Amino acid sequence: MARPMTMAEKILAAHAGLDEVEPGQLIECNLDLVLSNDITSPIAIKNFKQIGVEKVFDPTKIALVPDHYVPNKDIKSAEQAKQVRDFAREQGITHYYEVGCMGVEHALLPEQGVVGAGDLIIGADSHTCTYGALGAFSTGVGSTDAAVGYATGKAWFKVPESLLFKIDGQLAPGVTGKDVILYIIGMIGVDGALYKAMEFTGSAIRTMSMDQRLSISNMAIEAGGKAGLIEADDITRAYMDGRTERPYTEYHSDPDAVYAHVYEIDAADIPATVAWPHLPSNTRPAAESRDVKIDQAVIGSCTNGRLEDMRQAADVLRGRKVHPDVRCIVIPATQAVYKQCIAEGLMDVFLDANCAVSTPTCGPCLGGYMGILAAGERCVSTSNRNFVGRMGDPTSEVYLASPAVAAASAVLGHIGLPEDIAE
Amino acid sequence: MARPMTMAEKILAAHAGLDEVEPGQLIECNLDLVLSNDITSPIAIKNFKQIGVEKVFDPTKIALVPDHYVPNKDIKSAEQAKQVRDFAREQGITHYYEVGCMGVEHALLPEQGVVGAGDLIIGADSHTCTYGALGAFSTGVGSTDAAVGYATGKAWFKVPESLLFKIDGQLAPGVTGKDVILYIIGMIGVDGALYKAMEFTGSAIRTMSMDQRLSISNMAIEAGGKAGLIEADDITRAYMDGRTERPYTEYHSDPDAVYAHVYEIDAADIPATVAWPHLPSNTRPAAESRDVKIDQAVIGSCTNGRLEDMRQAADVLRGRKVHPDVRCIVIPATQAVYKQCIAEGLMDVFLDANCAVSTPTCGPCLGGYMGILAAGERCVSTSNRNFVGRMGDPTSEVYLASPAVAAASAVLGHIGLPEDIAE
Repeated sequence: MARPMTMAEKILAAHAGLDEVEPGQLIECNLDLVLSNDITSPIAIKNFKQIGVEKVFDPTKIALVPDHYVPNKDIKSAEQAKQVRDFAREQGITHYYEVGCMGVEHALLPEQGVVGAGDLIIGADSHTCTYGALGAFSTGVGSTDAAVGYATGKAWFKVPESLLFKIDGQLAPGVTGKDVILYIIGMIGVDGALYKAMEFTGSAIRTMSMDQRLSISNMAIEAGGKAGLIEADDITRAYMDGRTERPYTEYHSDPDAVYAHVYEIDAADIPATVAWPHLPSNTRPAAESRDVKIDQAVIGSCTNGRLEDMRQAADVLRGRKVHPDVRCIVIPATQAVYKQCIAEGLMDVFLDANCAVSTPTCGPCLGGYMGILAAGERCVSTSNRNFVGRMGDPTSEVYLASPAVAAASAVLGHIGLPEDIAE
Repeated sequence: MARPMTMAEKILAAHAGLDEVEPGQLIECNLDLVLSNDITSPIAIKNFKQIGVEKVFDPTKIALVPDHYVPNKDIKSAEQAKQVRDFAREQGITHYYEVGCMGVEHALLPEQGVVGAGDLIIGADSHTCTYGALGAFSTGVGSTDAAVGYATGKAWFKVPESLLFKIDGQLAPGVTGKDVILYIIGMIGVDGALYKAMEFTGSAIRTMSMDQRLSISNMAIEAGGKAGLIEADDITRAYMDGRTERPYTEYHSDPDAVYAHVYEIDAADIPATVAWPHLPSNTRPAAESRDVKIDQAVIGSCTNGRLEDMRQAADVLRGRKVHPDVRCIVIPATQAVYKQCIAEGLMDVFLDANCAVSTPTCGPCLGGYMGILAAGERCVSTSNRNFVGRMGDPTSEVYLASPAVAAASAVLGHIGLPEDIAE
């Protein structure tokens, strides 16, 4: 009889061919997917070629998603995208996504059914933890680890301790998954989950849509988490079953599994939350952030560029205009989301409100392009990082918030809530 | 009785308060509009401040259109856009266009009714000649001239000689305004109209839509032309009357006006034309360009980003897919065009065909962003310049063509015509 384990431990054990593992143990695991993007792939490809094998371990288990500076921002990014494209062709990579078929990686792969419950995934991008929302153990690695992953389909892990976040009760109206994760990061700090598997549970999570859950898991890394997992349930199954026919495996934490710490949170205590500069943990209620005048709002990214995010933003912007002193940039995270925005009339809402709507890209989130900030400018953004200079000049400021708060702020000209908008 | 004059001479005379002018004469004229963009405005603003006047001559007669690197590509472009925005606010400039309300300048200003027949316009952008299609005398200047224009509303001109291009007969099916101007530039060379006013007339022009005419006048500068004029007629009036209530004045060339040269062209002789690298004059029929394999297609720009261009591209792409080796980037030139693309279902066509659709911007045309080329890559583009390195790496190549040819090439994977696509 194996020792009681958390879902993170179970997934790692299964991929190491072991009956049980314990925190601190070093194990070698078989990977279900190795991911890299247009910034990290070129380095990984270079390292892969130095390993000296001809072919990747399995061309159906590698995902190459150019999204950061694509469509190509400049000559350098064009060269990077070309290296990825050439490698994908040469190796017959199944999950390569060209401009026009692409999206922001962490929105695209769940949507396309490339990742699923029980998977063990490494990605040369820190927000690879997103897929934890589907019940996968999924984590960001460096390009060298990705290169070894390309070649061998394996990676070493130190089994992390787990933290349990039990969020029970009902969220206040307008409070979203993004607010939940900002609240948690505000509570535990940017290293509060350092090299630990964060597991989210409780009735507030169980009743939450997949898009909201993905937003939560996406930001586990902002608390230092190695992964951010949510057990698969009916909502997960409904999401996955429409997207992929490949088998997936559900892992559930044992009732007596050992956690380094259990956080019990009353969902009703969580307000619409804003992370002020320059750390995701620097949180305050949106209602206490109204003095912050803004120059720009960005609605999109791997955190909040999914369909439900677009709907929430559109609900606020419908029939209204963006404040004349604000640029509001909306970036549906994938082509499918973009198409659905048109089909549902959301795109008309955005355009009528004077938003600029971009083709899918990470763009401004990491200071790439499509909305970079000048000195002293302030942006409210639905993305996941607000470090110094993240979106432009070192004196610019990024405030992280939900799509509803970002949209309301765009209309108001300062940070605020949808209910602050005068009719 | 004044000497017989061309329409260009008449517009200049009227704005100089003279009964007549003749080529070579130096005159000072009152301007109806001074234009600058996010690249040229900052220099013009700096120069304006050195002049020492407090206020611009007329805040309703200056247009500031950030479009080249906007939404901001990087910190430098963010600073430039901010300078333009601050100046617009400080001076109360009426025709300032913020992100979300903006478009590519030479598509936006005619569409918004800011320019009209009989106007004398200078713009700190070489393709300011576009408005000649409405019957205006409109020309590109440097930022210093724009600064003086801001301050005084006046500019000096040397009255240019005029060239008449008389295009009679019927264009072959699928041959567009873009093909006409490429054909003409191929015929006379990139300095064939150096400091001359090009005037386009004949039955093929008279029956041509406004969007097609704007495409022709847009490229006058590519033959060295000071302006590229088309007399106002019923089609012009119908276009303007829906957009502006301000008065406009029609100027018609006298039957016995003197031209430096009259070119008579049989419209039926003009094929679908492609300008090969690295000059707009290096033209060949599209039908003789089929060996050119392409990596990218760009459909947009101040030359061909208008609604009719979008329709022509969509007609080719409907029900088809972009070739897997090609990135096809579609950029409606203004928010209004973007909206109308949605309303007409063109956006669905583009997305279903796997095009990336960008928010309005000059973007890749001038190597800004949104589709820059890597070394050795080839792009067919509906834009107006194919100089060395124009869209990226110095070894990349740009082929200029109409929207229909660009769309067909995107599907084929090489330059070709719509009729080349197998059903």
